[in-house]
Amino acid sequence: MSWAAYASQLAGRAKLASRQLAMATSDQKNDWLRRLAELLIERSTEVLSENTVDLNKASEFGLNEAAVDRLRLTPSRLSKMAADLRDVTLLPDPVGEVIESSIRPNGLQIRRVRVPLGVVFFIFESRPNVTVDAASLCIKSGNAVILRGGKEALHSNLALHRVVRDSLIESGLPEHAAQLVESTERDIVGELLKLNGLIDVTIPRGGKSLIERVAREATMPVIKHFDGICHVYVDRSADPEMAVRILKNSKCQRPGVCNAAECVLIHEEIAAKFLPLMERMLVAERVELRGCDRTREFIPTAKVASELDYHTEYLDLILSSKVVESIDAAIDHIDRYGSHHTETIVTADDAAANRFTAEIDSAAVFVNASTRFNDGGELGLGAEIGISTDKFHARGPCGLRELTSYKWVALGSGQIRE
Amino acid sequence: MSWAAYASQLAGRAKLASRQLAMATSDQKNDWLRRLAELLIERSTEVLSENTVDLNKASEFGLNEAAVDRLRLTPSRLSKMAADLRDVTLLPDPVGEVIESSIRPNGLQIRRVRVPLGVVFFIFESRPNVTVDAASLCIKSGNAVILRGGKEALHSNLALHRVVRDSLIESGLPEHAAQLVESTERDIVGELLKLNGLIDVTIPRGGKSLIERVAREATMPVIKHFDGICHVYVDRSADPEMAVRILKNSKCQRPGVCNAAECVLIHEEIAAKFLPLMERMLVAERVELRGCDRTREFIPTAKVASELDYHTEYLDLILSSKVVESIDAAIDHIDRYGSHHTETIVTADDAAANRFTAEIDSAAVFVNASTRFNDGGELGLGAEIGISTDKFHARGPCGLRELTSYKWVALGSGQIRE
Repeated sequence: MSWAAYASQLAGRAKLASRQLAMATSDQKNDWLRRLAELLIERSTEVLSENTVDLNKASEFGLNEAAVDRLRLTPSRLSKMAADLRDVTLLPDPVGEVIESSIRPNGLQIRRVRVPLGVVFFIFESRPNVTVDAASLCIKSGNAVILRGGKEALHSNLALHRVVRDSLIESGLPEHAAQLVESTERDIVGELLKLNGLIDVTIPRGGKSLIERVAREATMPVIKHFDGICHVYVDRSADPEMAVRILKNSKCQRPGVCNAAECVLIHEEIAAKFLPLMERMLVAERVELRGCDRTREFIPTAKVASELDYHTEYLDLILSSKVVESIDAAIDHIDRYGSHHTETIVTADDAAANRFTAEIDSAAVFVNASTRFNDGGELGLGAEIGISTDKFHARGPCGLRELTSYKWVALGSGQIRE
Repeated sequence: MSWAAYASQLAGRAKLASRQLAMATSDQKNDWLRRLAELLIERSTEVLSENTVDLNKASEFGLNEAAVDRLRLTPSRLSKMAADLRDVTLLPDPVGEVIESSIRPNGLQIRRVRVPLGVVFFIFESRPNVTVDAASLCIKSGNAVILRGGKEALHSNLALHRVVRDSLIESGLPEHAAQLVESTERDIVGELLKLNGLIDVTIPRGGKSLIERVAREATMPVIKHFDGICHVYVDRSADPEMAVRILKNSKCQRPGVCNAAECVLIHEEIAAKFLPLMERMLVAERVELRGCDRTREFIPTAKVASELDYHTEYLDLILSSKVVESIDAAIDHIDRYGSHHTETIVTADDAAANRFTAEIDSAAVFVNASTRFNDGGELGLGAEIGISTDKFHARGPCGLRELTSYKWVALGSGQIRE
């Protein structure tokens, strides 16, 4: 079978499954989630032994220590995955929600009803637990999903997918509600990206080159973010201690993720008070600083920040810094160099907070809080399948509701249009 | 200046204007709408005389009588446009609406706040009043708009755009909030469709070839529908008189529009009662019927419906017809031949109505009402800029709210992530 034929088969089966899934009740979907949680534990020996096959090949793929750790499954990680599945049963089912309703003067009863998107093509490079996580969110929201994982996790993903498939069959949901692309061939992704008649949305999660390729080739909508160039702006009225605490958390708590801060902007009137405190924190946290000239007046050990630095998502313990003369200059800088992902202002001035939240055009804007809070769980969505920096459809973290559309349903008694 | 440079200039100006517009208050936007309504009347001589230039060239473009009528502006049509503008002032301003809010256990105050999309590129082939209509909806929802009209209406559109621009300047809104592409050169559209960094959404309204071109070339999201292949399904429990009334309205009230019906499906158990009534109506309305073999048993004068007929949006007084053995067969037919636009079931059976509304995957699904009600005004949106058959972002009629996105705003007091 050619890759094109394989892609059509996967997508065609997914489309058929999606029709049945759209009609599934919340109880059916939650029963499936609970059964999958049980099966993950019951079949942990099989899953862990396939994971070992991947781990033994990790050096072939040149994985570093951190990547090997992300790849590794353990009994406690499987228990955590099972617990996460039980958490998803507690989230409200978005399907069938009446978003709004009205009765028109002619008596037509109008409802806008939430429905699944249909078929999700989910591409990920990261940990094998994402296989189960993504399947749970897509199916709970009534969508069929085609999963494509990284080559370094193929055996783990195949084993996890078998468990998912068996749990679907046992629960009376369509077997093809979650399918795994069983080849790591690159061309198959290209073939799937052509199928906009069968696949309703593609969600790539991984490095920038993956996402750029998907955005370029996809014929269907894509939920994505390329970069997370996130900023902390320290306003002149900021509490310097709070600003250091927020910057430390934004930059250092998990530097490799998209909502970590990459650049700090400092109002010139607070530079003398704030920068020495910041320097102490950065040294303690082993963060390399790349600053503008005015930053370097206060912190002479800082490297020189180039134009490129302000455009860079380091994903590492490196921070760029610029002293600005006003909140306007901060907003302009973010507009020019940012990626519309996440920004925060530290301020004691309500007017400054209001201006910042109104004028910054990013998926999430915080006042006196860490950028790290731009996350589905932290913003109250319960779980997320990705973060969008686009403005179309969904923006910011995407949970169950963001995996849905709606349709208009109107009940009449013979109305015609005059 | 090259077309590429002209496109960049238009889109760059629109982007700047969109930033100011996003901050405009409802009062400012409504004041502008009222001023534009006044100016349309004050400057009607200028507008009507430019319209006459277009009318005098109509034969060069080969416009038929109906098309000339659509092109024509009159004092009463200008008054209607002014009245429509005043109606838009009465619609709620979507910008700034708090869609949802919550307080997290850590004290973070979370809001999801509605914001404009940014820049809309609106392409239309139809009547010149759409120039004013589209500008009013885009700007009321805080978006800048680039308008591209048809070549046959160029002088009318130029005159109307001058009035729009002057009203913007007088009202203190950015002059470039609404720009008209002042050339009918085809290549300029291609250049604008490349600018996904500046233009947030493209909305093409016109013939299928225009929409296909836009969907193929656009690098940004598109709100669109290709076809309106809409169905009326007459269930076995239908009141035959009501079914005829609804079919007549769906097919004949305005056959050239996208929510007009193109195909009727009849449950076999009601065929003997319904088809003779239908035949009488179709003859009286001069509708050509193309039926399946079983239709033709009852109506021998009907032409034979080919496979192609069921795939065709006639936009004319032609109707295809098929007798089906069950509601399942009707749903399957719609799934196979329909365009996911609008379908209606005529039935006295709640179970059939529920199955139809649940299983039909179309933007709007009606029970005992005409397909013609799939319209922004009729569904309570107040006005519409287009109808979407996609499931991503907006589905069905798109009004002010569908021209918006949202952002997450969170107010803290020093929270960091643990």
